Amino acid sequence: MSTTVWLNGCLLDIADAHIAPNDRGFLLSDGLFETIRVANGQMPHLARHLARLEEGCAILRLPAPDRTLLIQAISDLLHATKLSDGSLRLTVTRGTGPRGLVPPATPHPTVLIQATASLMTVPPPVRLGLSRYRRDGTSPLARVKSIACLPSIMSRMEAVAAGMDDALLLGTTGAIAEASAANILFLREGCLQTPPIPDGTLPGTSRARLLEDDFCTEGRLLPQELKTVTGAWLVNALSLTAVSSIDGHDLSLHAELDRRLRAFLFPA
Amino acid sequence: MSTTVWLNGCLLDIADAHIAPNDRGFLLSDGLFETIRVANGQMPHLARHLARLEEGCAILRLPAPDRTLLIQAISDLLHATKLSDGSLRLTVTRGTGPRGLVPPATPHPTVLIQATASLMTVPPPVRLGLSRYRRDGTSPLARVKSIACLPSIMSRMEAVAAGMDDALLLGTTGAIAEASAANILFLREGCLQTPPIPDGTLPGTSRARLLEDDFCTEGRLLPQELKTVTGAWLVNALSLTAVSSIDGHDLSLHAELDRRLRAFLFPA
Repeated sequence: MSTTVWLNGCLLDIADAHIAPNDRGFLLSDGLFETIRVANGQMPHLARHLARLEEGCAILRLPAPDRTLLIQAISDLLHATKLSDGSLRLTVTRGTGPRGLVPPATPHPTVLIQATASLMTVPPPVRLGLSRYRRDGTSPLARVKSIACLPSIMSRMEAVAAGMDDALLLGTTGAIAEASAANILFLREGCLQTPPIPDGTLPGTSRARLLEDDFCTEGRLLPQELKTVTGAWLVNALSLTAVSSIDGHDLSLHAELDRRLRAFLFPA
Repeated sequence: MSTTVWLNGCLLDIADAHIAPNDRGFLLSDGLFETIRVANGQMPHLARHLARLEEGCAILRLPAPDRTLLIQAISDLLHATKLSDGSLRLTVTRGTGPRGLVPPATPHPTVLIQATASLMTVPPPVRLGLSRYRRDGTSPLARVKSIACLPSIMSRMEAVAAGMDDALLLGTTGAIAEASAANILFLREGCLQTPPIPDGTLPGTSRARLLEDDFCTEGRLLPQELKTVTGAWLVNALSLTAVSSIDGHDLSLHAELDRRLRAFLFPA
């Protein structure tokens, strides 16, 4: 696979693709992104990602890129890279601007699309540690997949440094929100639940599919209630990952439910 | 003045200075910065900025750039741009990496220094609106001048859209934290105070100088106590700005105190 990227209308080798030093994405995290699964050369949930991107642009008061243009760009990049299985990352920033926070009156967004090949193997179960970083569910940005994900990076780094595989973040409400780069599903009294948006969880695309098809419901989980949880999974657009323990509390693996969730989310 | 920047060891025209699309600063806000005042070609508080940068790098678990190298780079850029009055922005990111949050084992940081000329005029007084965005003072990142400043951008944009000049953000504690790009000083019962770090305020360099020289003390201010405030200023490394109103509560301008603060912070 080549290292071709799509940047502002051009297919380029990544070595020839340049972001300006005064791009507000680079200087100020003024932008957002989507990570889109590609399986057998198809993206069955592309419309869902583009809709969330447009909702995020509205919250950021950023003109959304033309949807037809994005679809053509994605198609061109898939063709150029011959990507069959893996993911696309679509990044949109407010483009360049003068010094300071105040955006230009007429921004010219930067649009970057990158392709990454990966094998669609089942990831091994992970151990989660509770993070000291919090998700502010009262912020409109909690619903946006923004570039400003430094707290997620730090929570992951701290979890790994503590011998865990990933971090589980609470919301500022004190309830469990999500992992560093995935929503969480938890099994409690036979019911599969996922934290509600006000607790600071990102409205993930796989999460939305599971809710729409009644695989789970929304339910608040406080850290002190973890002992009532018997199973858990991390889920995002690319993968479903079983959780083997949370904060030292061991969980069972529930092979049959795992198989059903996987067959629904990521059919072969 | 030229548009020369210093990027990873080279002085370049900004048009020839390229950030890689897979720089973690651009994709994930994985970095931090300093804004340093230049007056008469001098930077009297450079050591303070470099110390804060190093503290921030430690929190980000990022190897700090060599201080001697940075000082030489800054000197070279000042010489190349002939900057006499204005500011430097020094940005450090974790450099490029593979897809995802997990940083490379051995990061190669990106270091960018930009110069901006500006007239050192006294800014007019500003009206502040209370923002719905919050600063989480419990997060280690609240003490870091990180690239992840999208909440500050959004708070400023919303304030301007509401007819204000800037936003005043509360901490998750409910107390007043800071403005979108400045600390706040408030005058209450004849005493000048500034919010404490746990309420979510960034440890600003000018704020530190004022505290060290007993111009002010730390004091918590709740929104319902604003009626006890008779004057306020925004302060950062580049400017002191009087506040004419907060959330519709009019403030006096206190010309003599303004003059004393300005003479201390930014002597001619």
